[in-house]
Amino acid sequence: MTKTDVFRSLHHGDRPLMLPNAWDYGSAAMLAEAGFPAVGTTSLGVAAAAGLPDGTAATRDETLSLARRLGRLPVPVTVDIEGGFSTDPGEVAQFCAELVAVGIAGINLEDSRSNAELADPEAHGALIAAVKARVPELFVNARTDTHWLGIDADSTLDRVLYYEKCGADGIFVPGVSDPAQIRTLTSALTAPLNVLFSPTGSTVAELAELGVRRISTGSLLYRAALAAAVSTAESVADGQRLDGEIPSYATVQRLLEQ
Amino acid sequence: MTKTDVFRSLHHGDRPLMLPNAWDYGSAAMLAEAGFPAVGTTSLGVAAAAGLPDGTAATRDETLSLARRLGRLPVPVTVDIEGGFSTDPGEVAQFCAELVAVGIAGINLEDSRSNAELADPEAHGALIAAVKARVPELFVNARTDTHWLGIDADSTLDRVLYYEKCGADGIFVPGVSDPAQIRTLTSALTAPLNVLFSPTGSTVAELAELGVRRISTGSLLYRAALAAAVSTAESVADGQRLDGEIPSYATVQRLLEQ
Repeated sequence: MTKTDVFRSLHHGDRPLMLPNAWDYGSAAMLAEAGFPAVGTTSLGVAAAAGLPDGTAATRDETLSLARRLGRLPVPVTVDIEGGFSTDPGEVAQFCAELVAVGIAGINLEDSRSNAELADPEAHGALIAAVKARVPELFVNARTDTHWLGIDADSTLDRVLYYEKCGADGIFVPGVSDPAQIRTLTSALTAPLNVLFSPTGSTVAELAELGVRRISTGSLLYRAALAAAVSTAESVADGQRLDGEIPSYATVQRLLEQ
Repeated sequence: MTKTDVFRSLHHGDRPLMLPNAWDYGSAAMLAEAGFPAVGTTSLGVAAAAGLPDGTAATRDETLSLARRLGRLPVPVTVDIEGGFSTDPGEVAQFCAELVAVGIAGINLEDSRSNAELADPEAHGALIAAVKARVPELFVNARTDTHWLGIDADSTLDRVLYYEKCGADGIFVPGVSDPAQIRTLTSALTAPLNVLFSPTGSTVAELAELGVRRISTGSLLYRAALAAAVSTAESVADGQRLDGEIPSYATVQRLLEQ
């Protein structure tokens, strides 16, 4: 099986696909080594690593550079390409073809735009259709930001059914947390539903019960990593013992030899 | 005071300079926000983030890109430039001039070379002298890897005294842990001594007693960050509560607006 086949099949296993989101090569390689069967990226992490604003076309080059690095991992990788870094369907399809060429198995394509507004469903559907026409093997996870931005949430179901009709392989609704709303979505959709894990929301087991097929961590792991960096430095400064196990220099070096 | 003046003075305070090492813009900005008065970089972190081997010239471009991003931070930043990415004193001095131009206050320049051998002290001293002649304001922390590589450790004192004579502003001996050896170095040197913190070695307070003036974390924070990313993802997958405080999406976004 190719990595794209493997990635597709992971949405139809006994349990939902638990997808951790990495921000760089080291974190992705470490998550793959820990046994996660696929790895995603987080646009916030990529933007923060580069010191660029999230949610704008500014991170296009960084996203492609990271994709080049992750394409060589042994597990399938899906890349957060925000809104596609362009409103032109041909340009977005071309970008996706470049991702496929470097070994990427999937993308997230969101309908929010850099001005924190939602694209017209038709405009976003055109991007999805163009990508699927150009690189049919790529798993296109169509994301609607109705809940994430807290605007026009009533249009969620219409939007995701339309994106599915345009060829989306999966549907991602970050920010949806109400069990009844999640159930409505999973009942209406044929494509697997992806939600964002929230530390204050449902557990993975509860989301599985609701029919969710993929659970991603978004920027959580990058934010946990920043917290660990600061707390470790503070513990050293204060002469406190370090909690938990930290991989050795040699372990990280070995990840780079893959 | 300029950032280079501030950085220099931090080596002569009441307590040793506790220098946390970041691997990207987000981690550096977070450490500065947490109150650390200066931030360094870790070449392992930079290499791992980019999926490149550490300790080779391959990371030259990544190092410069990161330096450009960190030069805009409110605190002084010192950059790990490994062996200078060249054996030519003019090229190393030129690279350092580029770092100063983007707002960098200091560098680490090590005498190990990519083949895991030590440079001749004279050759390394020539790099230090060339850098100081070109950009005298840059704080040059001359690092000897006798202990780090475990070769020719008897030459440590001769090497560091020679590097000091060549103009080094500080001396870094990663891997030295024996209190008597540390005391020998701090007694002989005029320049401030920097050692690498080890979770199994002396505490910051003990190192201060021995006359150490700067304590860095090397790759520890990046490795702690990777551990946190994996353990957070595993906790989510296993339905366990997340430990500790994790900064919000908005907090990280705000770091990017600086």
